[in-house]
Amino acid sequence: MLSPLQKAGVLTEALPYIQAFYDKIVVIKYGGGAMVDPALEELVLKDVILMKLIGMKPVLVHGGGPMINHWLERLDIRPEFIDGLRVTDEVTMEVVEMVLAGRLNKGIVSRIQGLGGRAVGLCGKDGGMIRARRVEGDRDLGLVGEILSADPGLIQTLIDQGFIPVVSSVAAGQKGESLNINADTMASALGGALRAHKLVLLTDVEGIFLGEGDGRRLASSLLAAEIPGLIASGALTGGMIPKAKGCLEAVEQGVENVHIIDGRQPHALLLEIFTKEGIGTWVKKAD
Amino acid sequence: MLSPLQKAGVLTEALPYIQAFYDKIVVIKYGGGAMVDPALEELVLKDVILMKLIGMKPVLVHGGGPMINHWLERLDIRPEFIDGLRVTDEVTMEVVEMVLAGRLNKGIVSRIQGLGGRAVGLCGKDGGMIRARRVEGDRDLGLVGEILSADPGLIQTLIDQGFIPVVSSVAAGQKGESLNINADTMASALGGALRAHKLVLLTDVEGIFLGEGDGRRLASSLLAAEIPGLIASGALTGGMIPKAKGCLEAVEQGVENVHIIDGRQPHALLLEIFTKEGIGTWVKKAD
Amino acid sequence: MLSPLQKAGVLTEALPYIQAFYDKIVVIKYGGGAMVDPALEELVLKDVILMKLIGMKPVLVHGGGPMINHWLERLDIRPEFIDGLRVTDEVTMEVVEMVLAGRLNKGIVSRIQGLGGRAVGLCGKDGGMIRARRVEGDRDLGLVGEILSADPGLIQTLIDQGFIPVVSSVAAGQKGESLNINADTMASALGGALRAHKLVLLTDVEGIFLGEGDGRRLASSLLAAEIPGLIASGALTGGMIPKAKGCLEAVEQGVENVHIIDGRQPHALLLEIFTKEGIGTWVKKAD
Amino acid sequence: MLSPLQKAGVLTEALPYIQAFYDKIVVIKYGGGAMVDPALEELVLKDVILMKLIGMKPVLVHGGGPMINHWLERLDIRPEFIDGLRVTDEVTMEVVEMVLAGRLNKGIVSRIQGLGGRAVGLCGKDGGMIRARRVEGDRDLGLVGEILSADPGLIQTLIDQGFIPVVSSVAAGQKGESLNINADTMASALGGALRAHKLVLLTDVEGIFLGEGDGRRLASSLLAAEIPGLIASGALTGGMIPKAKGCLEAVEQGVENVHIIDGRQPHALLLEIFTKEGIGTWVKKAD
Amino acid sequence: MLSPLQKAGVLTEALPYIQAFYDKIVVIKYGGGAMVDPALEELVLKDVILMKLIGMKPVLVHGGGPMINHWLERLDIRPEFIDGLRVTDEVTMEVVEMVLAGRLNKGIVSRIQGLGGRAVGLCGKDGGMIRARRVEGDRDLGLVGEILSADPGLIQTLIDQGFIPVVSSVAAGQKGESLNINADTMASALGGALRAHKLVLLTDVEGIFLGEGDGRRLASSLLAAEIPGLIASGALTGGMIPKAKGCLEAVEQGVENVHIIDGRQPHALLLEIFTKEGIGTWVKKAD
Amino acid sequence: MLSPLQKAGVLTEALPYIQAFYDKIVVIKYGGGAMVDPALEELVLKDVILMKLIGMKPVLVHGGGPMINHWLERLDIRPEFIDGLRVTDEVTMEVVEMVLAGRLNKGIVSRIQGLGGRAVGLCGKDGGMIRARRVEGDRDLGLVGEILSADPGLIQTLIDQGFIPVVSSVAAGQKGESLNINADTMASALGGALRAHKLVLLTDVEGIFLGEGDGRRLASSLLAAEIPGLIASGALTGGMIPKAKGCLEAVEQGVENVHIIDGRQPHALLLEIFTKEGIGTWVKKAD
Repeated sequence: MLSPLQKAGVLTEALPYIQAFYDKIVVIKYGGGAMVDPALEELVLKDVILMKLIGMKPVLVHGGGPMINHWLERLDIRPEFIDGLRVTDEVTMEVVEMVLAGRLNKGIVSRIQGLGGRAVGLCGKDGGMIRARRVEGDRDLGLVGEILSADPGLIQTLIDQGFIPVVSSVAAGQKGESLNINADTMASALGGALRAHKLVLLTDVEGIFLGEGDGRRLASSLLAAEIPGLIASGALTGGMIPKAKGCLEAVEQGVENVHIIDGRQPHALLLEIFTKEGIGTWVKKAD
Repeated sequence: MLSPLQKAGVLTEALPYIQAFYDKIVVIKYGGGAMVDPALEELVLKDVILMKLIGMKPVLVHGGGPMINHWLERLDIRPEFIDGLRVTDEVTMEVVEMVLAGRLNKGIVSRIQGLGGRAVGLCGKDGGMIRARRVEGDRDLGLVGEILSADPGLIQTLIDQGFIPVVSSVAAGQKGESLNINADTMASALGGALRAHKLVLLTDVEGIFLGEGDGRRLASSLLAAEIPGLIASGALTGGMIPKAKGCLEAVEQGVENVHIIDGRQPHALLLEIFTKEGIGTWVKKAD
Repeated sequence: MLSPLQKAGVLTEALPYIQAFYDKIVVIKYGGGAMVDPALEELVLKDVILMKLIGMKPVLVHGGGPMINHWLERLDIRPEFIDGLRVTDEVTMEVVEMVLAGRLNKGIVSRIQGLGGRAVGLCGKDGGMIRARRVEGDRDLGLVGEILSADPGLIQTLIDQGFIPVVSSVAAGQKGESLNINADTMASALGGALRAHKLVLLTDVEGIFLGEGDGRRLASSLLAAEIPGLIASGALTGGMIPKAKGCLEAVEQGVENVHIIDGRQPHALLLEIFTKEGIGTWVKKAD
Repeated sequence: MLSPLQKAGVLTEALPYIQAFYDKIVVIKYGGGAMVDPALEELVLKDVILMKLIGMKPVLVHGGGPMINHWLERLDIRPEFIDGLRVTDEVTMEVVEMVLAGRLNKGIVSRIQGLGGRAVGLCGKDGGMIRARRVEGDRDLGLVGEILSADPGLIQTLIDQGFIPVVSSVAAGQKGESLNINADTMASALGGALRAHKLVLLTDVEGIFLGEGDGRRLASSLLAAEIPGLIASGALTGGMIPKAKGCLEAVEQGVENVHIIDGRQPHALLLEIFTKEGIGTWVKKAD
Repeated sequence: MLSPLQKAGVLTEALPYIQAFYDKIVVIKYGGGAMVDPALEELVLKDVILMKLIGMKPVLVHGGGPMINHWLERLDIRPEFIDGLRVTDEVTMEVVEMVLAGRLNKGIVSRIQGLGGRAVGLCGKDGGMIRARRVEGDRDLGLVGEILSADPGLIQTLIDQGFIPVVSSVAAGQKGESLNINADTMASALGGALRAHKLVLLTDVEGIFLGEGDGRRLASSLLAAEIPGLIASGALTGGMIPKAKGCLEAVEQGVENVHIIDGRQPHALLLEIFTKEGIGTWVKKAD
Repeated sequence: MLSPLQKAGVLTEALPYIQAFYDKIVVIKYGGGAMVDPALEELVLKDVILMKLIGMKPVLVHGGGPMINHWLERLDIRPEFIDGLRVTDEVTMEVVEMVLAGRLNKGIVSRIQGLGGRAVGLCGKDGGMIRARRVEGDRDLGLVGEILSADPGLIQTLIDQGFIPVVSSVAAGQKGESLNINADTMASALGGALRAHKLVLLTDVEGIFLGEGDGRRLASSLLAAEIPGLIASGALTGGMIPKAKGCLEAVEQGVENVHIIDGRQPHALLLEIFTKEGIGTWVKKAD
């Protein structure tokens, strides 16, 4: 039980952060484990509402891996992956869209509303927000899309009217076909189009690790410009490479700061925003 | 092949209607057969875009019966109905939400975008647009909802910014649970909240019929105030009763005109708007 | 008698044109024969109102040759012309102003109002819209003016408030004297100042003809940059030269497209706007 | 030659009037002798511009008797009057419209522009400002109109954008025919529709006189409510009766103060506005 | 040292209060002991800035007893009081104005600016915010004023532009003379004129006490309507009576809630706003 | 006693000046003798209000030498000067702030309000308007400040809302300490930040004099660029040098015209604004 003075202390300590981030757009990519645990989800959504209340402008982008698999299984459709990307045939894409843009998206909206926020659920098709095309490559991944451009108009309108946009990672291709988009990539593209101050990736890892084996350690901060060298030198390996590249891309598209934090830790988002130390890895455009 | 002069004739004939409906909100409930046939759907959506272009403010509300059944069958869930209302257990509701708010809603959005319109897909949960509660009754219908109130704020914002809102008939109950709402009822509630000039119900029937058997005839127009008497006298029977009641309710909630037209007829919407005769049944608030 | 479906067909065919020209300013120079025939005039004004209703921003500029002559005759003043330009002494100028800015201008306004549009009648003096000076030359043409500059402020204000400006080709010179301005030149100057998308010249000819005698043929489209060469080579002759120069000038002043069409053809304006083929000659800034 | 201090004195004396009339609409009916003398006219227009510059919102309404007669004579048309109202056949009406809405109106606009003001010339037809109908009576006055209603929209738009509207007393009847309107009546109707603070009638008389013969004296102020009694008692006679009734009508239509002043006196308008004594007759709504 | 989770706990606990008070105007009367101690003052001002940052609209009203006395002493002017009201002769009033509207007011402004807020220092004279008159009574208190009316225009303008208004309790009388106004009364009048959600009186007492001697106890909440009865029954005595009357007056003038809290307690303001228990006495308009 | 026509003459003569200065910002530095004489002060403030009423945007900046000395004497503090700059120890600064930002500033505000204007009293601390630092030099002048930058935001907000800002020459230093700023310098810095059309320095001299002894004469106008040469050549001497440098600085900071006029002459301000001859010295940016 904290004393009144301790409470007052926390609130006044938060003052400079509240000042610094006032009116700033923060895109939060929300997925993985934090989405599966209802208690964790409630903490994340409360944090998002608090960010909104103190004057920040949060935008939520979500994927939804586990729930897609659940429904594919119920339909006896076996998920297939190539290099970590889901192979998406037509019926799989129908399920992906229904789960992401239907069940999960509207569920998040409903829970934010229940907690007193005002949310609007969207996908990349709405307002022509994301123009995409089918990925071409050696092996056909099916209805997997890459982003051609992002139009921030609709989201900006909703932000200006005080709503919290919640966006699922589905978009339309050039013939109007539904495409499955990587949620990190989508968050990054929207962050860039919105000139977001921060992109926060809530993931299942603690951050970006450098090195391997015994020498493995969490990088608490990186300059975006360092990343290509770290990949070339072998300091970044395995699953760290796409994450680091994603951060680099986001910065190149116009986001000022990217944070990779562990969504499994309660209030990870709040601690990232309101404590000097922060948690996870912070990738900055410039020092 | 029409001559230039004939074309000019049609355009100038449309003039008084374009004048009369300028800047008016028209809520269109779109469902049934017209949704199943892609060619018909394209005609409906083109009509909606044309309405928009000439200055009207269309709002689309849709249900989606056949596609829900398709997925329930794929999942070996047998649909059950009581008095024409679907009994909706939890897993059924999950499928309903995924199909309506996911697949169908975003598909319509995508097709409107492809035709050059700017659409945003929503459900009753978004922006707290619809407050609902579980229907209570003698037999438990499960997660079927009735509307407590409708908040036009989000839709009005989107209309003001030039978007065409596309709304699926799912809403949140008082504990945040997803509820299945009758699409006609939802269109009616939104029409009332938006003080819509017109509510157009695109259905699988030609309009409201009076009488039975040989005496059965299409009512081309009705005063809302006549409806209770027509029910009491037996002139309205069977499936006509809920339709007529729906019209009455819409008028009572603030809609000025309700039209029941046959969505299976190509360009039914356009013909209703731009020809004096119109088609189907027109229920007016006042003469 | 067209079928409902044929009507619907015309309306949906017009869709891409309505989309393309939405919110665009179109300056229409209206004169000659179309002004004399009340039935033709009504068609022109209905077309203008329709353009307005579907979201375009029409501005009407008119001259008025025949009616000026009628009043000069009644006053026993003989009209005199040099190189197609009226010699305008003081009393003639008084009659010109009375007929153009008084009788004709307010008559057009009144007829547009009667057809349901909202029009405001102006001349080049209003709001300082046109700054002009007396033409100097070998032979004195009297109170004939050339335009020094055009200020779009007043017209823009009226357009923004939903009015259709109707402008007669009279302006004030540097000492405040009334000057007779060529209506084509005035339409062109206003089109440039308003950054108009289109300038449509409703004339008594079918368009710009190239060549003479048997080789004479209507040019359906020309690039503005071609015009000087066509004059130099003798392909443009006689009355075609000022028309072609007028188009070139309009493009140089900022108008994107100039159309010379035959105002004697019913609904020429509408057919030009809503059919792909169009009629008359289209002078484009660029391909 | 005034001393600097005397000049300063005049400017500071004007202070309370400038304060009191700031942002107030003043409709000025301008006609008769003041219109005929160019030197007087310049003084009137300078006064109007000064009113505008110090924050008042002047609207000018004008008739034009003498110049109409001049042109009718030139055309060998003999003017005819019944009870002080001009009998207006069709050709006379054409001349009236050309002179008022053409020559005179645009001349005033041009002179205001030349003095540094921004004016727009209108008549009752523009923007549907005045709805009128033909006067019916025992003897047919021809195309003489009475006002059914006045719509302040267009004038308000122009005032808001900083223009000085100049309105001639011509309007359209119910079939679109041009009608000659009494300029006092029109000024009064516009004053009422605009909720004007003042209506100033610049006339050829010094004000309203009470009594006859030796007892005749100028009324420096009257309450509107006194007027019917003064007519009934015979204190108001002859040409004074329509003037007094006009004032009463203006007050009944919503104008707060009506002033009848002598337009032949240099700067009558300015002296009325900026001196406590004022000149002419002031008819007030209330003490 | 609090754990990250404890910090997050405090921030999320504050959520409902931040939601409830968003965009609400809170007038804070700041005086007495809290003004004398620089460390306490800094805490108060930080709390005010925090309130501002999270979306509330604070307005500061201050008196300044001790510093006035300090300067009066330096000038060998002996302060005199009648019934707790300072007798204010002309030279005393000059000192009061200099200290309040000069030294203290601008000092507070400067310190808020130094802490990152944007403040504007005003007194009741600025923008004609307070109309006052000299208090009349049995014994002459000199230049002591009572408020006739408060005009919220200037403060509202500054709030709308994001400033924190800081107002000293000096106003002009009917002849322009400076008057000393009780700061509680002024805060109350401004709160009413601004339709403030809360008026917080930061004082040197813990709240309103009921009873005397051993039975004396702090009232944690009171209904405004109870106050007259408590005075009549003797439950409120001595210095409590003006404080309670002040609260009642504020409620009668339009403030919804009045809080009397102890400004000597660190972060009293923050604790009042963000904890359920609150501190001091809360006087409510209604339950 | 002037005749009506003479009065009208003065008002119409003022017309071109009113036109030329409409909507222009004029910063007036008001100090010295004109502040001491209540009758003169009233004339100055009336002139300021008149400027405001006819559409100019006056901003008043004031110092207050004599009254500061009066209070320092009453407190037995002896004023000390170095090179014409007051040496300001801490207690002196407290008195300076109280007199300038308290007594004098709020007195001016109150008198403007009493004359019908709407004024707001500020100092350099308000809204962070002036960032200053302590002057460093050979001899320590104490709390005397020099300006680092000026932020026009708050003043612009108040001007836009129709207020007359009245600013005293006190500002905060980098540690928040109060600093005494030269009022001419402050007027100049604010004039530059506001891109003022005019800076008028109301002083105790008739203008800038060139030469000495018998050759001494008033410069009626100077180009800013001439000033350095005039100082170098010895044409400007003594107290003229800082005044001329001040004008130069103001022009360099963005003010278009600087006027040094004699505030002891009644209505000096008005005569400067509304007569062609003007009075005092006019320093122009360019011919």
